[in-house]
Amino acid sequence: MIPMNVTKIKDPSFLKKMNKDELKALSENIRKFLIERLSTSGGHIGPNLGVVELTLALHKHFDSPADKFLWDVGHQSYVHKILTGRGDQFDTLRQFKGLCGFPKMIESEHDVWETGHSSTSLSAAMGMAIARDIKGDSNYIVPIIGDGALTGGMALEALNHIGHEKKDMIVILNDNEMSIAPNVGALHSVLGRLRTAGKYNWAKDELEYLLKKVPAVGGKLAATAERLKDSLKYLLVSGVFFEELGFTYLGPVDGHNFDDLEENIQYAKKTKGPVLLHVITKKGKGFNPAEMDRKGTWHGTGPYKIDTGDLIKPVNIAPAWSALVSETVRRLAREDKRIVAVTPAMPVGSKLEAFASEFPDRMFDVGIAEQHATTMAAGLATQNMKPFLAIYSTFLQRAYDQVVHDICRQNLNVFIGIDRAGLVGADGETHQGVFDIAFLRHLPNMVVMMPKDENEGQHMVKTAIDYNDGPIAMRFPRGNGLGVEMDQELKNIPIGSWEIIREGTDVAILTFGTTIPMALKAAELLAGKGISVRVVNARFIKPLDEAMLMDLFTSEIPILTIEEAVLQGGFGSAVLEFAHDQSMSHIQIERMGIPDQFIEHGSVDQLLEEINLTSERAVEIIQTIAPIKQKRA
Amino acid sequence: MIPMNVTKIKDPSFLKKMNKDELKALSENIRKFLIERLSTSGGHIGPNLGVVELTLALHKHFDSPADKFLWDVGHQSYVHKILTGRGDQFDTLRQFKGLCGFPKMIESEHDVWETGHSSTSLSAAMGMAIARDIKGDSNYIVPIIGDGALTGGMALEALNHIGHEKKDMIVILNDNEMSIAPNVGALHSVLGRLRTAGKYNWAKDELEYLLKKVPAVGGKLAATAERLKDSLKYLLVSGVFFEELGFTYLGPVDGHNFDDLEENIQYAKKTKGPVLLHVITKKGKGFNPAEMDRKGTWHGTGPYKIDTGDLIKPVNIAPAWSALVSETVRRLAREDKRIVAVTPAMPVGSKLEAFASEFPDRMFDVGIAEQHATTMAAGLATQNMKPFLAIYSTFLQRAYDQVVHDICRQNLNVFIGIDRAGLVGADGETHQGVFDIAFLRHLPNMVVMMPKDENEGQHMVKTAIDYNDGPIAMRFPRGNGLGVEMDQELKNIPIGSWEIIREGTDVAILTFGTTIPMALKAAELLAGKGISVRVVNARFIKPLDEAMLMDLFTSEIPILTIEEAVLQGGFGSAVLEFAHDQSMSHIQIERMGIPDQFIEHGSVDQLLEEINLTSERAVEIIQTIAPIKQKRA
Repeated sequence: MIPMNVTKIKDPSFLKKMNKDELKALSENIRKFLIERLSTSGGHIGPNLGVVELTLALHKHFDSPADKFLWDVGHQSYVHKILTGRGDQFDTLRQFKGLCGFPKMIESEHDVWETGHSSTSLSAAMGMAIARDIKGDSNYIVPIIGDGALTGGMALEALNHIGHEKKDMIVILNDNEMSIAPNVGALHSVLGRLRTAGKYNWAKDELEYLLKKVPAVGGKLAATAERLKDSLKYLLVSGVFFEELGFTYLGPVDGHNFDDLEENIQYAKKTKGPVLLHVITKKGKGFNPAEMDRKGTWHGTGPYKIDTGDLIKPVNIAPAWSALVSETVRRLAREDKRIVAVTPAMPVGSKLEAFASEFPDRMFDVGIAEQHATTMAAGLATQNMKPFLAIYSTFLQRAYDQVVHDICRQNLNVFIGIDRAGLVGADGETHQGVFDIAFLRHLPNMVVMMPKDENEGQHMVKTAIDYNDGPIAMRFPRGNGLGVEMDQELKNIPIGSWEIIREGTDVAILTFGTTIPMALKAAELLAGKGISVRVVNARFIKPLDEAMLMDLFTSEIPILTIEEAVLQGGFGSAVLEFAHDQSMSHIQIERMGIPDQFIEHGSVDQLLEEINLTSERAVEIIQTIAPIKQKRA
Repeated sequence: MIPMNVTKIKDPSFLKKMNKDELKALSENIRKFLIERLSTSGGHIGPNLGVVELTLALHKHFDSPADKFLWDVGHQSYVHKILTGRGDQFDTLRQFKGLCGFPKMIESEHDVWETGHSSTSLSAAMGMAIARDIKGDSNYIVPIIGDGALTGGMALEALNHIGHEKKDMIVILNDNEMSIAPNVGALHSVLGRLRTAGKYNWAKDELEYLLKKVPAVGGKLAATAERLKDSLKYLLVSGVFFEELGFTYLGPVDGHNFDDLEENIQYAKKTKGPVLLHVITKKGKGFNPAEMDRKGTWHGTGPYKIDTGDLIKPVNIAPAWSALVSETVRRLAREDKRIVAVTPAMPVGSKLEAFASEFPDRMFDVGIAEQHATTMAAGLATQNMKPFLAIYSTFLQRAYDQVVHDICRQNLNVFIGIDRAGLVGADGETHQGVFDIAFLRHLPNMVVMMPKDENEGQHMVKTAIDYNDGPIAMRFPRGNGLGVEMDQELKNIPIGSWEIIREGTDVAILTFGTTIPMALKAAELLAGKGISVRVVNARFIKPLDEAMLMDLFTSEIPILTIEEAVLQGGFGSAVLEFAHDQSMSHIQIERMGIPDQFIEHGSVDQLLEEINLTSERAVEIIQTIAPIKQKRA
């Protein structure tokens, strides 16, 4: 009865009757399947290999979808997807129109909560628990959260509230001693102490026997003795931290041992109020290169060779954007002791390892804690330091108020390096970096820029570090640069200055960053049609190059703006606003960008095609607006 | 040497030489001064009366500004302001161009960190501690944080990081058992247990004496005995929760007893690594009405009568907006069991007390935890409930990512009641609700509306509850309605529908909410000048009433948009975007709103005047755009 071909599994009901040996055999099949499939598609191999037994045990002992599994972050949901009938879609994993790498309601009724960003599951679970109790239902609610995600502020807020309300809920703490990179934070030490304490269940009678041997004392010591007995609780329970917060702590449990998992899950199901079941798992379990990884390389990967464990990297001689930025910061940090790098749990993704090695006292990985990272950077800036906050566009969303209230309002010199700006591809809609312009542009004191290539990028890093008039953000995309020649000497780029990168007289395209090649291609195509297109590198999104814009307006050239970001409130809107503020509303201004919808996963090129953000579309639009100018000429 | 007139104090240096009796006398003077001054100006009386002794002790034993005080939230900084030479400005407190109610760097070198929103001080302190250590300085860093603010997610993120890094820092936990309203959350219970445990410092020798009396045991009990001894730590320290996180816990200390404060501050100064000094204070101490308050009424008030403790309320027969919204939700909740109210620590401000009394199982005050509140609402919505998230505009900023990632992306039916939208007055720049349109409008699936008066407001509440196509937000201002007649029966307002509230043919003003009276006044003034102005209640900010806009565009009437919100990316920009998308860029569209700057405190009218957001300015603009139309006519 063990499905040898895991792509044939339709739903998890068959698990109920499986014994331990069958579950073990199934685990091996699933592991083999994952290792093989992901070797060609890439994906979150490490996290999923770590939760094979845990996911089987959960689906065996609970009844999804009546019982609710909430996969925090969600990159560890592949086994859950296989068990709920989606194994046959793994050849499309993380591909355009294919299986999503995260839980997705439209894929299955077993996906009851969608994730991507971390630390949301406990709050959502609390909402579901309240709803259940109001309705008088009795289903189980089971958020599965990693030790890294647990330190996100909203998860801690939720722990505090859940412990207070005492709602029935079984929190599975999937402790693999890593989040994406190795974990930091005092809570991590708390978990570490629990792990080393090993597995024990303190028998109440044993302890009481011992306490009875403490003689009755009077006088000065009476209070001490009383306190000793009050402290029974701290001795009986190992997870005092969680017990203090109102949870029943169970564990630690070996997350690869079906007996242990079963025993503890059964106990948790019988326990009233919130339970935290501490499960120890091994990230990458069963695949040696991933299991041995201590850096986070095998958290999520592209394709790899199964036999050697070598990652198959696309040949690219251009530097990765993250490396370009972090390495330029490192270079500048040699001469400027004020530079301090801050990352919320992304030292690898942000390529800050070399910086950390060279400047261990000036590099702070704060864990999954974007809010704290951002305001800590503000605190550094108040002391005349030069903080470099390395953060992905999509995660900066979580620190919006800190950017508003702490950085912009106090006008502090924080350099925000916004990584993964624009479409990110396979991670999909939770990770697209398309809102940052719209949520930063309306903030007073903020400068936002994006370079056209890595050479301009390194100069922008220098510009940002040298800037002393408040916050400055530089967006840069996922992936690699264009392979352009790099200047040896770094220089400053005047704030708010654009540059014309192709002359033209009929129409002007204003764009920046990743869409510049698209604009140049459109200009080239239009040249063949007799339309002369000027292309402007609008590298400062805020402030605009108002002098250049006024020149354009007075010459009455129609304008097309292009941005790989949401249209509403974006760069194009800034140009519209300026035109109307200057009573230049008669200028024809068209905008291209990301429409008012969430963008799914797929390759960036496929996604751009899907939303009609292409050079072909630019050609079409320009052909409709250019003739007006041509007739006048 | 006791300053009888506290307005003469220039700096805190005189405190160093004061003895306990002198400090006590000074405390009384300061209390008397605060009670008198605030009785006419209003302000945060409760929090400040609670920290008189604490603030004196801090300024006596530390050397500000070399040592850094960070006042979390900041409404408790009045005593600090008096001691640092600002007592003479208290007649201008919270008034236009007057003394700010929160710490403000431009006021004094002793204000090293500005606040307003809660829970930021620990992160900022960490940044300052890192900077100090890099520079090799040795100053103390002293964040002062309330027990309410401590449960904000970013404060918990910071605790976790500070405990991990072991930086020297003295966190003063100002525990008054209240934040703004009575506190909730499991951490609050932790503090409660510490408080009831009373003041004790466990002597190591006492405990070891007791433990020695536990006989040596072998066999089965050996491990238990060993564990008992390992647990010494839990017995020695009372603040196990904080000790687990890596802090040295000191306390609890009576925050009104100078001897206790001095002893513990001195001990804290000698302790390496992060210290948490738990100080118990009494909110409103020394002023009976405030001291007796259990609801939060005396957290911040308007003017009051000192002898009776009666609040002097402006006579206003119109309902307060918060009450109108919450009471309408309550009315609907009688017929719809799916309605659940959620507030992050604002049950009083959001006027949810009656709802809580009537529906105790359907009302959740989650404490200062905006992120958790928002995602919990999303979780409720997944279970077909109808969550009403009551939140101030300025605090919704902290849940931006949760609105994006959890609510909008999953397109869940959450009704966000955005209270205090627009300018809020005396609380000033940290609290102005002016960004919400710009940060919500670009989010797919979001509906944003604002009613013209309280009657339309109650219908909008009904509309929001009945809406089933995703998230819907209703903005409403601080203060009271207009006193209009209220319909008995609630009805739905078609989504995206505007209404013409004054006919006119020359120019159209598009506006909503609080600026409608301004528009009507301008129209009236212009009628006298022969210009006929149409006024449109653009009550849906998203989606726009595209049909009405197209009518306006095709009739080529110039348009003026007015909004009490930031101009960049705001409602006016939405109109510009739509015009250009419809190739109607030739229409003259002018925009009025809040410019690209932070807006200080003052009365709303003064602030509107300051930024030129007035009917007079509307008249001026319309006179420049109307003639074009008139000539054609």
